[in-house]
Amino acid sequence: MVDIISKKRDGASLSKGEIQYFIDGCVDGSIPDYQTSALLMAIYFQGMEDRELADFTMAMAHSGEMIDLSPIKGVKVDKHSTGGVGDKTTMAVAPIVASCDVKIAKMSGRGLGHTGGTVDKLESIPGYRTVLDKDEFFNQVNEIGASVIGQSGNLAPADKKLYALRDVTGSVPSIPLIASSIMSKKLAAGADCILLDVKCGSGAFMKNVADAVTLAEKMVTIGEHNGKRTMAYVTNMNMPLGQNIGNALEVKEVVDVLNGKGPEDLTKECEELSATLLMMAGKGRHSECLAMVKEVIKNGQAMNKFKEMVQAQGGDISVFDDLDGFTKAAVCYEVKADRDGYIASMDTEAIGIASTMLGAGRETMESVIDPTAGITICKKTGDKVHVGDVLAVFHTSREELLSPAVKRYLEALNYSQQTPEQSKLVYAVVDKNGVKKL
Amino acid sequence: MVDIISKKRDGASLSKGEIQYFIDGCVDGSIPDYQTSALLMAIYFQGMEDRELADFTMAMAHSGEMIDLSPIKGVKVDKHSTGGVGDKTTMAVAPIVASCDVKIAKMSGRGLGHTGGTVDKLESIPGYRTVLDKDEFFNQVNEIGASVIGQSGNLAPADKKLYALRDVTGSVPSIPLIASSIMSKKLAAGADCILLDVKCGSGAFMKNVADAVTLAEKMVTIGEHNGKRTMAYVTNMNMPLGQNIGNALEVKEVVDVLNGKGPEDLTKECEELSATLLMMAGKGRHSECLAMVKEVIKNGQAMNKFKEMVQAQGGDISVFDDLDGFTKAAVCYEVKADRDGYIASMDTEAIGIASTMLGAGRETMESVIDPTAGITICKKTGDKVHVGDVLAVFHTSREELLSPAVKRYLEALNYSQQTPEQSKLVYAVVDKNGVKKL
Repeated sequence: MVDIISKKRDGASLSKGEIQYFIDGCVDGSIPDYQTSALLMAIYFQGMEDRELADFTMAMAHSGEMIDLSPIKGVKVDKHSTGGVGDKTTMAVAPIVASCDVKIAKMSGRGLGHTGGTVDKLESIPGYRTVLDKDEFFNQVNEIGASVIGQSGNLAPADKKLYALRDVTGSVPSIPLIASSIMSKKLAAGADCILLDVKCGSGAFMKNVADAVTLAEKMVTIGEHNGKRTMAYVTNMNMPLGQNIGNALEVKEVVDVLNGKGPEDLTKECEELSATLLMMAGKGRHSECLAMVKEVIKNGQAMNKFKEMVQAQGGDISVFDDLDGFTKAAVCYEVKADRDGYIASMDTEAIGIASTMLGAGRETMESVIDPTAGITICKKTGDKVHVGDVLAVFHTSREELLSPAVKRYLEALNYSQQTPEQSKLVYAVVDKNGVKKL
Repeated sequence: MVDIISKKRDGASLSKGEIQYFIDGCVDGSIPDYQTSALLMAIYFQGMEDRELADFTMAMAHSGEMIDLSPIKGVKVDKHSTGGVGDKTTMAVAPIVASCDVKIAKMSGRGLGHTGGTVDKLESIPGYRTVLDKDEFFNQVNEIGASVIGQSGNLAPADKKLYALRDVTGSVPSIPLIASSIMSKKLAAGADCILLDVKCGSGAFMKNVADAVTLAEKMVTIGEHNGKRTMAYVTNMNMPLGQNIGNALEVKEVVDVLNGKGPEDLTKECEELSATLLMMAGKGRHSECLAMVKEVIKNGQAMNKFKEMVQAQGGDISVFDDLDGFTKAAVCYEVKADRDGYIASMDTEAIGIASTMLGAGRETMESVIDPTAGITICKKTGDKVHVGDVLAVFHTSREELLSPAVKRYLEALNYSQQTPEQSKLVYAVVDKNGVKKL
């Protein structure tokens, strides 16, 4: 192990055998944590070359269960977001692609800190089960085309171990290590095509576009080296996506998108990601796929598919007939502007935290989520605001949570007197041929 | 601690308070090894600035006993070699400087691997005690001017802990960490002036002059920042120093030097180091000090001082009257040349190992040393050799040890047909004003 650490310290690439030795020893405990943390720090400084990183990630994937999706017929696609605020695209994308005859067997995570999690959002629908046994999961995808459940506990245990150690030894912000952490679980989850949505900006882990693009490139390389068709979008997280943050509130907004009435940014991103997944699955050129996507939204198939999926997983679809009742919180409070000007920027992480403070998120793993809590944003970056305009509506079950959350929200907004520049929704698209900046 | 690791990872300097927190936590066990090893690897990559490294080293020194040499009157000097093969200068330098009225209260180490240790060498003299209690040690230095004993067990425990961890986590070859490891013990040992002899070449830890000079500079900086007059020599360890390797054999060669009959390289280095110590202690300019050194050798005072020191520590000085008997081993074997040519270079580490294989050194901490085992070298780099010439005489108690040691020795020699370039004895001298290359 000392030789392996020294080799990486000196900038050499580790062989597949050395990587396997390390991952095995890390999981079975035969390599002490002090050696693991030293190697991780050496990787932080020296990085990994493509082949090495691909092997490292696959070894992590193989440290636990490798899900075999072969009982599901056809091409299986997966999508993953690196985490943002108001990012509810998975809930829309899954029924859209399933309506276009592409299978999506998706395992999602829960929210922690300022970011939400798809599993929490879906659980705001009464009865929705996020734990299915494997046969149920496979059968549902075969029959309906889509299922979204919680992540299996035994995916990539090496990643759990390494992440916990990185967290306490200062090697979290290493792009190859972040890439391998995400991709080890994607590889273990078994899909044929993987689409990554790398969030970038004030509400994301990646704060600048250059780093986000590098992360996207690394993940695409890892996927492609391991025989998976892989692409990545780098998208804007300098403001929340859509207007709603919270669990039931985000489900409602997904229904709006599927009914063709969603906010422009969210709708566009859901359509883009869906079309790209269809293209990756061999359904045609991107423009053709985009037309298919728009069609299944327009003709109601996508919304019906969402209902089918929810119903198959035990969810009460009557909520879709009374979305206002579904999202109604005990307390609604209008946050009003105390000045004139344009909103120049939003500290999106702080906005996510404000929503968490209202009860929509988890501050610790043990926190209980309030499904109707959250924020409806009325003014976003670029909008002109006058004193007294409603900036946002806060939803919560407990009035006493309002005041600190409002304070946090107002501090997150920066104003200017000039019209701010229009911001991009997508910064870049990455595939095996390289980066296309938009 | 994660903040401290991250700060260093990002190239910032740690404050005195942060360094103290780390060293304290490292010694009391409150900081887990996996965090310590991550910080050490971050230091490996990011280095330390001068003030920071000086504070780090002093914090390590203060983790254990700080020896107070104030009961010894006058200026106290110390010298330290980074370790080589045939390096017996301490045994000559101590009596030389003491003969010139400069006090040297020196704690030395034992040999391990291919390098010898002064304590082992002195213990080849029957009766010589390397463990004295503090009063005895101070009294002897006050009366005679010199004492050489073994290192106290409680010097810089933080260094022991950090070194053990570096050894298994790939951060041994970090110049600031090497410098702090050496200097923490020198600072704890309490002398006013510290002269370092950084060995450089095939028999030393530092293989190239640039690294050796950097290490010398760092150590001088650490000493000077902590109020110690500090200088360093960078000297040639591409061949053994002098002709003898082994314990009794090296004592004999020291007697030769003190009698003015030592090999040229060893004599010159002992004179240089002694003169520099005298200069550092305020005895005059270097040239004046060198004249004093030559005088005390010529007039026999240095040799008498050595006898006095040995006798005061219980050693049997009658050995000096029969040095051939003192060094006589059961088996003496002449290693002869099997080809013609010039010796172009010597793998000095391999020569040290050959001597260890004869019984002169320790392969593990538990090995027992054979005091008369070792090698007398007859042909060194630059010498012309004919088939059948005696290259070296091997001394051992066990004939069966000869054959592998001879093989190792012969493989360590490289020949050429041209006269090799004359090699330097001293590459550079470093003081607080900078580096003087020679």
